[in-house]
Amino acid sequence: MGISVSDYLVFRLQKLGVNEFFGLPGDYNFNILKSIENNPKTKWIGCTNELNAGYAADGYARIRGVGAIVTTYGVGELSAMNAVAGSMSESVPVVKITGLPDSKFIKSNALIHHNLNTPNYKAFINAYSNVVETAVFLTKDNAKEEIDKALNVLIKEKKPVYIAIPMDVCNLIIDDNFKKIEQKSDKNNLNLALKETLKIINNAKQPFVLADVMVKRFNATKELHRFLTKSNYPVATLLMGKDLIDNDEFLNYLGTYVGKFGNPKAYDNINNSDCPIFIGTVISDINTQGFDLKFNPNDYINIQGNYCIVKNTIYKNVLMKDFLYELSKKITKKDYKKIEYDYIYKKIDKKEKVNMEYFYSKLQDFIQEGDSLVVETGIVNLALAKLKIKKNVSVNNQVLWGSIGWATGATLGISMALKNARTILVTGEGSHQLSAVEISTIMRNNLKPIIFVINNDGYTIERILCDNPKDKYNEIAKWNYSKLPLVFGENVYSACIETCNELDEVFEIIKKEQKDKMCYIELKFDMFDLPELAKKAIAGSKFEKYSL
Amino acid sequence: MGISVSDYLVFRLQKLGVNEFFGLPGDYNFNILKSIENNPKTKWIGCTNELNAGYAADGYARIRGVGAIVTTYGVGELSAMNAVAGSMSESVPVVKITGLPDSKFIKSNALIHHNLNTPNYKAFINAYSNVVETAVFLTKDNAKEEIDKALNVLIKEKKPVYIAIPMDVCNLIIDDNFKKIEQKSDKNNLNLALKETLKIINNAKQPFVLADVMVKRFNATKELHRFLTKSNYPVATLLMGKDLIDNDEFLNYLGTYVGKFGNPKAYDNINNSDCPIFIGTVISDINTQGFDLKFNPNDYINIQGNYCIVKNTIYKNVLMKDFLYELSKKITKKDYKKIEYDYIYKKIDKKEKVNMEYFYSKLQDFIQEGDSLVVETGIVNLALAKLKIKKNVSVNNQVLWGSIGWATGATLGISMALKNARTILVTGEGSHQLSAVEISTIMRNNLKPIIFVINNDGYTIERILCDNPKDKYNEIAKWNYSKLPLVFGENVYSACIETCNELDEVFEIIKKEQKDKMCYIELKFDMFDLPELAKKAIAGSKFEKYSL
Repeated sequence: MGISVSDYLVFRLQKLGVNEFFGLPGDYNFNILKSIENNPKTKWIGCTNELNAGYAADGYARIRGVGAIVTTYGVGELSAMNAVAGSMSESVPVVKITGLPDSKFIKSNALIHHNLNTPNYKAFINAYSNVVETAVFLTKDNAKEEIDKALNVLIKEKKPVYIAIPMDVCNLIIDDNFKKIEQKSDKNNLNLALKETLKIINNAKQPFVLADVMVKRFNATKELHRFLTKSNYPVATLLMGKDLIDNDEFLNYLGTYVGKFGNPKAYDNINNSDCPIFIGTVISDINTQGFDLKFNPNDYINIQGNYCIVKNTIYKNVLMKDFLYELSKKITKKDYKKIEYDYIYKKIDKKEKVNMEYFYSKLQDFIQEGDSLVVETGIVNLALAKLKIKKNVSVNNQVLWGSIGWATGATLGISMALKNARTILVTGEGSHQLSAVEISTIMRNNLKPIIFVINNDGYTIERILCDNPKDKYNEIAKWNYSKLPLVFGENVYSACIETCNELDEVFEIIKKEQKDKMCYIELKFDMFDLPELAKKAIAGSKFEKYSL
Repeated sequence: MGISVSDYLVFRLQKLGVNEFFGLPGDYNFNILKSIENNPKTKWIGCTNELNAGYAADGYARIRGVGAIVTTYGVGELSAMNAVAGSMSESVPVVKITGLPDSKFIKSNALIHHNLNTPNYKAFINAYSNVVETAVFLTKDNAKEEIDKALNVLIKEKKPVYIAIPMDVCNLIIDDNFKKIEQKSDKNNLNLALKETLKIINNAKQPFVLADVMVKRFNATKELHRFLTKSNYPVATLLMGKDLIDNDEFLNYLGTYVGKFGNPKAYDNINNSDCPIFIGTVISDINTQGFDLKFNPNDYINIQGNYCIVKNTIYKNVLMKDFLYELSKKITKKDYKKIEYDYIYKKIDKKEKVNMEYFYSKLQDFIQEGDSLVVETGIVNLALAKLKIKKNVSVNNQVLWGSIGWATGATLGISMALKNARTILVTGEGSHQLSAVEISTIMRNNLKPIIFVINNDGYTIERILCDNPKDKYNEIAKWNYSKLPLVFGENVYSACIETCNELDEVFEIIKKEQKDKMCYIELKFDMFDLPELAKKAIAGSKFEKYSL
């Protein structure tokens, strides 16, 4: 059957799980937006700016497996580049779609709006090529083939792709047949990798599993759990993969590994293991708390989404899913004593003024099975390490890319993708300022996230990192946050909290109000009120006197 | 004398006119921010996000000749790319400074935060290279030389440059001597070009000057005026160069050329000229209202910032300033009858409800000598065509790049650069939403622009351009705009206007209030209330029934 190019792209993305497309309209992308509006299963979500739309698409993709952002040429697409690069960094499959001027203008290199003053219609795809896995420029001759190619990469590599579509190319009629995207392991490589891995494991005394975010991205959580059940190996996660395992599911779960400042049992057990098994790990500075890890994964067993490395030999086209499934069949259960572990928030005494520790212990109670957490970069991310994870709670953070403002935009996408589950955002106010207005889109779409804005009067994470915590450049404009949502409408419960008693009350109110509307809570913390992990990290430093 | 690399860069930029640097802090740019804070003549202006900071730097550079934005690596810099590309498109000399991780991490290609997960420390400079004139990556060996090179390009080409500085490179000590940037014409080329130009002019019956924005950028306004006085040639400007000439200064000023939808006398006079002289023109779609111009400038006399083209022969290294100065000496005055012309807003009768035509006629009265106008892309830009320009009024718009949201961010930079003159922003509410929170930075710095937010319930310019003006994707979130500044503080006069009487009152109030604070006025217009130029442009189109 014949179908237009933009209808085909929308149809394919819908089949992959995209029901909502984020972005902004522009006169070069109307045809794409019409395809979205004409497809009964897809919906256009207009955002307040392109960066936020990119964050929303990223959040959406973290839940649904694929997300999409549509912008216009030049002005629109460049504004979204940070968000798309973030999806690249964190392996989130987002399609960045740009509507371009009609091919005749491209051919004649016409100086029409949204161009540099010496037009180069390849300039922006060239810029994007640096931050996506694949970038394609559709023409009348290659449209179908290039869309199929880009979507294959998207699904197989779990990385963003960029698709540029001139206005007229949108309307060309192409064939609507397509080959289902198949993901299969190379049998030979899989067997070789299994054989080598079993050799190591069977000779080991203390295998230890460190699991991380790529397990989620490559949809292998079920296989990871099966492997842990079958093997009984002790396991910790890294911060990015915080939600892979809930605290009560496995005998030997040791929580989130955050180096020597976290749970000492996790630290000792992994660093003394003679067989560390890395599953989907991202070994970055913050995810390992300054590379505080004795091992290089490649020297041992490093299982990634679509390859694995065993003792520095790489086995390509081995899917994590398949590898863990097969390994689970061949593994024998280890007998372990339960390693006692209590690196979680505990009930603490109420003080007059609300503080970090009290808030997180209350939040931990408040979180229910099935909730989805969105955690901003900075102090909040460090506080997260100690949070107990309940069943089916998803945690979304951006530990590697760490773009402040991401979490607020991502909350739009995540609450849109989830619809009925609760979405809870925790953000510092410094980060929030970058994308705060996107709560307007949340309210416009009647989404009901619970938003906690921690107001500690500036960029506290940077106060820790710079020479003088009181350096002026870490100050920010003082906003009356709880008034902000009222600019956008009335379907919101908003409050500003300064005491522990108020916080207790607010949690009770939220439980009811959240059923109908967004809840938006500003929490006033002291500038130097830090979570335990941050306090330990700066102990002995020049910053210590300000905070401990 | 020895000076650190970042101190040197700040020192050089200060000498070029940069007293305020816009941006956001990040742990990779602290050293640069310290240099800004330590220089007694420079100040750090923290913004709410990097895109807005880029717009502010662009606005600042339009007034001061140079602007600067500082961000962190990856996350920060990519967010600003649209703004910097806009500066490139519109020839605005902005320095984009990025703070990078320490060279040791770059050398070892370490996976530290703000990287793609396979780090490539050149990825972001490579991306930027597509949208700036020159991009340099400082190392311990090249720092001084590359800074000097980049600043030379900045000043000579009036285009943005990108400078990447690893943390440790900031602290290296270099020599503080530098060669003053010299801009000189090639004498030989200048004389040849003059000779050819005079040949044409002296044989012409009806020379006509079309002047545009590059005259401003290359600081040749004085020379243009001298040339017009000496020659007496009739002149029109394009929209981007709207403010080059005030309405009462020259006998034969024919206002802003906007093709056949504008002033018919300007249209006829230029298109019937046998000697059109193009000075600093940008021949883009919107700047010429759909290329509605009989001539190709290169076939006649095309004088640009640092070159000119006469009958398709290019003369390089000929500065507009010098060329006009020399030409003025050799030209003989033409005797012309004054061409009557009244393409300006006139007093109109008051209706109950406020409307476009009434607002602009009142605004025209309200504008004083020395005011600076910031005009957003879209409907507002079209309305501008008819505005009478008083003495020393500067008009700032972004007709070629056309990034919606630019004007609000640029208003921060422009009001900061001007300090004591009045800055007046006119923006549609659709565009405003993209960068609206930057008014918080304006208020934080006690700047006092007058901001008019035209609320016509969606993207009206796009309603005109798309198939169906009521297409849903041109709707936006409904905000209570006049409440927005109250979230950020109390030093603001804010109001929402629905009637002509209210508008009259508000103009009176603003005259007083503006001395002390920002004024922020929401104007509620009908969705299909269009300025004359837009009405004419759509006459006969499917949209006409909605608006005329």
